[in-house]
Amino acid sequence: MKTLIYNCTALLMDEGNTILNNAFVVVEDIYIIYVGVERPQAEFSQEIDAKGNVVMPGLVNAHTHIPMTLMRGYGGGCNLQTWLNDYIFPVEEKLDERSVRAGVQLALAELIASGVTTIADMYMFCDAICDEIVQAGISGNICRGMVLFAPTFDPNTNAGYLEMQALMRDWHGKNDGQILIDTCVHGEYTSNPALWEAMAGFAKEHEIGMHVHVSETKMEHENCIEKYGKTPLQTLADYGLWDTRSILAHCVWTTEDDWALMKEKDITAVHNPVSNLKLGSGIARIPKMMDAGVQIALGTDGVASNNSHDMFEEMKFASLLQKGISCNPTMVTAYDTLKMATTNGAKALGRKTGQLKEGYIADIIMLNQSAFNLTPCHSVEENLVYSANGSNVCMNMSRGKVIYKDGEFFTLDISKLQSELKQYALPLLFGSK
Amino acid sequence: MKTLIYNCTALLMDEGNTILNNAFVVVEDIYIIYVGVERPQAEFSQEIDAKGNVVMPGLVNAHTHIPMTLMRGYGGGCNLQTWLNDYIFPVEEKLDERSVRAGVQLALAELIASGVTTIADMYMFCDAICDEIVQAGISGNICRGMVLFAPTFDPNTNAGYLEMQALMRDWHGKNDGQILIDTCVHGEYTSNPALWEAMAGFAKEHEIGMHVHVSETKMEHENCIEKYGKTPLQTLADYGLWDTRSILAHCVWTTEDDWALMKEKDITAVHNPVSNLKLGSGIARIPKMMDAGVQIALGTDGVASNNSHDMFEEMKFASLLQKGISCNPTMVTAYDTLKMATTNGAKALGRKTGQLKEGYIADIIMLNQSAFNLTPCHSVEENLVYSANGSNVCMNMSRGKVIYKDGEFFTLDISKLQSELKQYALPLLFGSK
Repeated sequence: MKTLIYNCTALLMDEGNTILNNAFVVVEDIYIIYVGVERPQAEFSQEIDAKGNVVMPGLVNAHTHIPMTLMRGYGGGCNLQTWLNDYIFPVEEKLDERSVRAGVQLALAELIASGVTTIADMYMFCDAICDEIVQAGISGNICRGMVLFAPTFDPNTNAGYLEMQALMRDWHGKNDGQILIDTCVHGEYTSNPALWEAMAGFAKEHEIGMHVHVSETKMEHENCIEKYGKTPLQTLADYGLWDTRSILAHCVWTTEDDWALMKEKDITAVHNPVSNLKLGSGIARIPKMMDAGVQIALGTDGVASNNSHDMFEEMKFASLLQKGISCNPTMVTAYDTLKMATTNGAKALGRKTGQLKEGYIADIIMLNQSAFNLTPCHSVEENLVYSANGSNVCMNMSRGKVIYKDGEFFTLDISKLQSELKQYALPLLFGSK
Repeated sequence: MKTLIYNCTALLMDEGNTILNNAFVVVEDIYIIYVGVERPQAEFSQEIDAKGNVVMPGLVNAHTHIPMTLMRGYGGGCNLQTWLNDYIFPVEEKLDERSVRAGVQLALAELIASGVTTIADMYMFCDAICDEIVQAGISGNICRGMVLFAPTFDPNTNAGYLEMQALMRDWHGKNDGQILIDTCVHGEYTSNPALWEAMAGFAKEHEIGMHVHVSETKMEHENCIEKYGKTPLQTLADYGLWDTRSILAHCVWTTEDDWALMKEKDITAVHNPVSNLKLGSGIARIPKMMDAGVQIALGTDGVASNNSHDMFEEMKFASLLQKGISCNPTMVTAYDTLKMATTNGAKALGRKTGQLKEGYIADIIMLNQSAFNLTPCHSVEENLVYSANGSNVCMNMSRGKVIYKDGEFFTLDISKLQSELKQYALPLLFGSK
């Protein structure tokens, strides 16, 4: 299967910030095998006329909890504890595999239609999540959210650990790496050293990544310092958590010393600006972190606290927030932001995606440049970061296969999804209203 | 002409934050004549099945410069002075009426498709702007941007003043108030007392509103205090500028004393969060202003510094920014924000719109509730402010007439617009690239 995309403006996301006009992209199986301005001489099984539209690498949503899409807007506007205790936790108690599948499909529809080709997810019922992602055709780094409130950890009986072992066996590396399993500590404040040692050991044994919430709220950050005499990041470092590829969500309250360690350990901070604003967690000091050499990726977090999976919107927030706070319009440029959502996310997840480049996974999206909100186009990157929203995506090719085009999904059964939501998942979780 | 909208979830934007399920809305000519849950017994010339979708008042974009849509993303990322001097001003020098018309049509397409039914605009070539707005079918408060660098003001020769007089004669109150002309002082820093006296006099003579940029940047605010010993708002107050209905854009650096005066004078602050962030102007202290009793409306500002006309996006920024800065998720609720974009904007512009209520202008929009990014819907207002974007708008009824539905425009000639942009306006302003 060889596909040619022609007549496109190609945003490569390479080191030189190259944008090629009248470009050609060739995809074979799941890989990009050519990007350039010369028309390649070959036979193609599929030719896609981009009609002058922009093609770019698919977006990497580096931190989310996709089944929570079922809770979009639920209990919104409350303070954090009320929201969690009175709304989110009671619903999570009722989740079952079937309702999770419906939530995952709903999230995938939203993600795919808005240009995401890769996600890092932390939740429960991960076998179902992996299965749905594989069927939908995008790539996923999946981890089972791990908490521990008991003083000791027994790998023979801990449900999460048993699920992780099964995930490693059944899904890790599946389909040339379409699914990667990462290990997880939900957060310092929801666990203790017994879990940290076990998870660091698991990551080392299997050579997999580590996905953790770090310093999301001021209270979490300060309570940890009070308890352990160190920040969450430094506390967890002592247990070897960062001795592998590490994805650290939020990092709102991290310190200069944390950043030095992050740089040293090549840790990625996943910035979730919308969720951090919505929950009143604060605003991560992204420009200072970038200056300190910390790699920044971007995520939406779960839709219960966003309330959208639109990574274009997330980019706009990520860039503009820092310009406004610093009163400096040159901060966090459009290109800086595009890198967060593509190449940096790819690196955080240990994946060869996020660039249009030979040998990379063919995760490619196209945006409709004739949309009024993208007209005129004086600067491709300005339009992508500040003018576009997810609805401008007109094609999603994930792992070499067009899975969405002009409103049509080719791997999701939308009518079944709608029926599952209405007939099963929403009544189960929220009653019949 | 009598239209029935049935089978809708109606967000009334009344005092009680009422949302009616299975509601009926009846429109006669340009007015809403019924909103309720009883099916009205009458003959209708048009019946619209809302299919369970949300209908709400059309949005009021209370501060923009619509011809600047031609400069979307142009010179973005520079500091303010470079952006203005090297990009914006040289292009504005080249504008002519024909290119302005193309820019206005482009803006109107974007505004209408994303649910705006009323705008307040400040720019030049206002005769053309009024004409295009009337043809498109929305409502507009239009003012000629007025600057004065000379020490004296001569009403017999000042081009802007002569244009204002013609606008009053030709457009003010046209079509039952579809167009209202406001007077204008561009800003304290771009004018002097000679203009302020003349404009205050003009507003008083004609009993029209006043539209002014106030304390957008720290430099503007502080320079004024240095020069006049008072803030811009208080300086201009001495010349009677606020003795009429007043629309004050930005107000980023306004003070507690300013807010007291704004409350006393019933002045509306138009918050433009995205533009203020993008240009590095800062973040207006909206919750404190609300506590002080200041009415807050919402605007996108010109698209050259946004870079979008999407008022749903603007609402999300307006609400979330304040939650994040204050670390308090209960600040600036979804309802507070919806009010900014509807009822408060309407009041600022002196218009009976922004509510679904008998006797109000029939400015009504519908959102597609089956969109994935609006599924599920646990809270209509949460979904509208935090999940929706402009692309979810599936119908725009302005002044009783459906001017947009499901991607189709009924008052704009899209192919002519595209041709005018490509063949005339963009080459004229930006050269042939």
